[in-house]
Amino acid sequence: MEHTEMDNKHLLLRAMSSTAAKQYDVDARPPFVVNSAKGAWLKDCDGRAILDMTSSNGTTLFGYRREDIDNAVIEQLTQRGTIFPTTLSAQRIELAERLISRYPAAEKAVFFRTGSDGTSAAIRMARAYTGKRIILSSGYHGWHDWHRLFGKACFDKQTEVFHFGYNLSALSQLLEHAREGIAGVIVTPEPGWYDESHFQAMYQLCKQAGVPFILDEVMSGLRYGATGLNGAGVSADLVVISKGLANGHALSCVAGKADIINAYDAAGLAGTYNKEVTPMAAALTVLRILEEEKPHEMACAVGAELMQGMQNAADKIGFPLWVTGAPLMFKTVFPNMALADAVTTSCFSSGLFLECSGTHMINFAFGAQERDYAITCFAEALKEVKSSGLAEGVIDSEISEFQRKAYARDAFGAAFEEDEDIMHQIAQVLAYLDLR
Amino acid sequence: MEHTEMDNKHLLLRAMSSTAAKQYDVDARPPFVVNSAKGAWLKDCDGRAILDMTSSNGTTLFGYRREDIDNAVIEQLTQRGTIFPTTLSAQRIELAERLISRYPAAEKAVFFRTGSDGTSAAIRMARAYTGKRIILSSGYHGWHDWHRLFGKACFDKQTEVFHFGYNLSALSQLLEHAREGIAGVIVTPEPGWYDESHFQAMYQLCKQAGVPFILDEVMSGLRYGATGLNGAGVSADLVVISKGLANGHALSCVAGKADIINAYDAAGLAGTYNKEVTPMAAALTVLRILEEEKPHEMACAVGAELMQGMQNAADKIGFPLWVTGAPLMFKTVFPNMALADAVTTSCFSSGLFLECSGTHMINFAFGAQERDYAITCFAEALKEVKSSGLAEGVIDSEISEFQRKAYARDAFGAAFEEDEDIMHQIAQVLAYLDLR
Repeated sequence: MEHTEMDNKHLLLRAMSSTAAKQYDVDARPPFVVNSAKGAWLKDCDGRAILDMTSSNGTTLFGYRREDIDNAVIEQLTQRGTIFPTTLSAQRIELAERLISRYPAAEKAVFFRTGSDGTSAAIRMARAYTGKRIILSSGYHGWHDWHRLFGKACFDKQTEVFHFGYNLSALSQLLEHAREGIAGVIVTPEPGWYDESHFQAMYQLCKQAGVPFILDEVMSGLRYGATGLNGAGVSADLVVISKGLANGHALSCVAGKADIINAYDAAGLAGTYNKEVTPMAAALTVLRILEEEKPHEMACAVGAELMQGMQNAADKIGFPLWVTGAPLMFKTVFPNMALADAVTTSCFSSGLFLECSGTHMINFAFGAQERDYAITCFAEALKEVKSSGLAEGVIDSEISEFQRKAYARDAFGAAFEEDEDIMHQIAQVLAYLDLR
Repeated sequence: MEHTEMDNKHLLLRAMSSTAAKQYDVDARPPFVVNSAKGAWLKDCDGRAILDMTSSNGTTLFGYRREDIDNAVIEQLTQRGTIFPTTLSAQRIELAERLISRYPAAEKAVFFRTGSDGTSAAIRMARAYTGKRIILSSGYHGWHDWHRLFGKACFDKQTEVFHFGYNLSALSQLLEHAREGIAGVIVTPEPGWYDESHFQAMYQLCKQAGVPFILDEVMSGLRYGATGLNGAGVSADLVVISKGLANGHALSCVAGKADIINAYDAAGLAGTYNKEVTPMAAALTVLRILEEEKPHEMACAVGAELMQGMQNAADKIGFPLWVTGAPLMFKTVFPNMALADAVTTSCFSSGLFLECSGTHMINFAFGAQERDYAITCFAEALKEVKSSGLAEGVIDSEISEFQRKAYARDAFGAAFEEDEDIMHQIAQVLAYLDLR
């Protein structure tokens, strides 16, 4: 009866032979399989309760099994239908209208199923709109081909994407010398390292050069406050929004200047499953609750207390740690990956699930109890790792500027002013464009 | 009260300014917005009942609002959760195991959200597995960048994809002279033009050359009989399956040789929303029903009668028409697009929705009533178009071999033996590989 053994261990064994990728699905995660989730909490297949500080990559902004959102999906399923054969539905139209009124950049909005599809569609529309090819990119935008060299400052000639690593000097030079070839600039905000003015400066440079500026708010659109960086004053020609929009159901939105969105046809965009209405029904309820209940204020307060509590726990025992970012999407920076992994592993064994990347995204189901539970688990983990000796040589130091930048280089391909390589790469773009 | 006017006309006007792409969302479709759907039938926002012969691009294999499938989704939503924070779930593991036992090619199975994502992932895995770059492609595989030149026989140097148009001679020559550079061959079956032996011959050529053969069964996996061409005896190293798998919920599967699927990590695949469990819960119920009730037999009979009825209606009045393909995915070929459009428009005005592409996909909710209704609407439309004079000059002729091939060239990029251009293109690949 192999197939009825439904505990963590047996499920993982079955997964290894039937479906799991060794690194992505198994080695990169603690050895457990979730059976159910409610609010901020998971129950795994061994019956253990675990506090989830990932919100499933940030998607469950309201926590798991929020009844009013589930009911909207159920009503759509049982009263109207999962998917309709035409691409327009009342739900899509109303959702677009609500997002247009919500995000300053949005004049028109179109929908896809994933963040990767949203960013890919955004650059396709920018290319079709401008008739140009080169994309300047900073940060992570998903798994698609055009983005394959994410993580290092370089020019990918084959995909015509230049990874400029958030570097304003590089952006400025590229826009000055190569704007005739540039279709758009796409940037994922990293608020732990760069403040709003950094991104607004990027927008201004783009505006002067007449190049579309695309803000990849897949993660931040509903997690950097209630309306992302765009709502906080960072201008953009297009924004891409996804995580939280349908509280776990797959949905992404590209919104922005109507002229660029209208390049949808010229860009050859399509997609059978963009017709599915259920995630849009969920999103309409998400936006209604956000407007009526304004849950961000309370959640951001809890998130800020959690960040401070984690920082305090480290400071108290002289454990080098930098907690940075926005309350609903913050990061923990350790002196090295071995220490980060050890703390994550220790937290998991006491019932707190953290993402190995060090990105933490709480949700609206987090209250004082979850905050305190997380801080306690985290503090215990720091103590355990400290006493293990693994941290020897770094204890009682602070995270250095060098370490902060090293994390940013590794995690999202940042290239700082002292990183000379980025400037050498620019010559390649200019040569490619025959503009030298 | 602009926003409460919810009829077709007002919704379309609102859509034009907020979300619709002029060509893709509006011009290419009849002017209606669906309000709800049940079984095989739609109700639009003016309250009109319309028979849907598209099944939403083929996704609703069981028809709309099939209660047992909806209940599986509702149970997942309300008892366990929409999405889980790790990539493995009992639902995913069981779904993989069921698909492995269902499709001969499947040793291991991984999941994505859309057909386009599935085919993109398949070629990424083939490239990572072989360490080679060139992809040979026939037919439609979605909207992603690598596939941008779909529709004409050519070599796209930038994406390293050769579109060989189902041409066995071209495939044979490419595999003979360039196999050192070829990562995989991906083909979407078009059973209206090529029979199973054509695709099995492709597999044999690939096998001899040691090149992975990928069968894109996004449309055919559950519509070419119950188990696609792979289940009907066409071998493959990978198959991509999607439409119908979750009856309208977004889900795709890449299944095949474990060695190739295990290149998932090396291919850098990922995706937040691949963690959503609801479509997998739907798919488990879909597969259970398929095994218990075996609905394909009845549906294929209805589909075959419908095809015959439509052909008869045309033959009876001397209207040139070729109805071809498999019963759950057939095509109507007219002498020209103007006639096809006129018939589609006339059908819609009498309450039958056909896809403008001429691909027709019925579902298990089609019975004798729907079959007869569709045949009646279609026959009336043919008569109306005939009497309009639009068909003058072609009436009383048959669809010629030339017209059959012209349709295949336009619709899915077929290149026949007499299409000399394809052979000239091969030289480009060889030059690219420095193999000449």
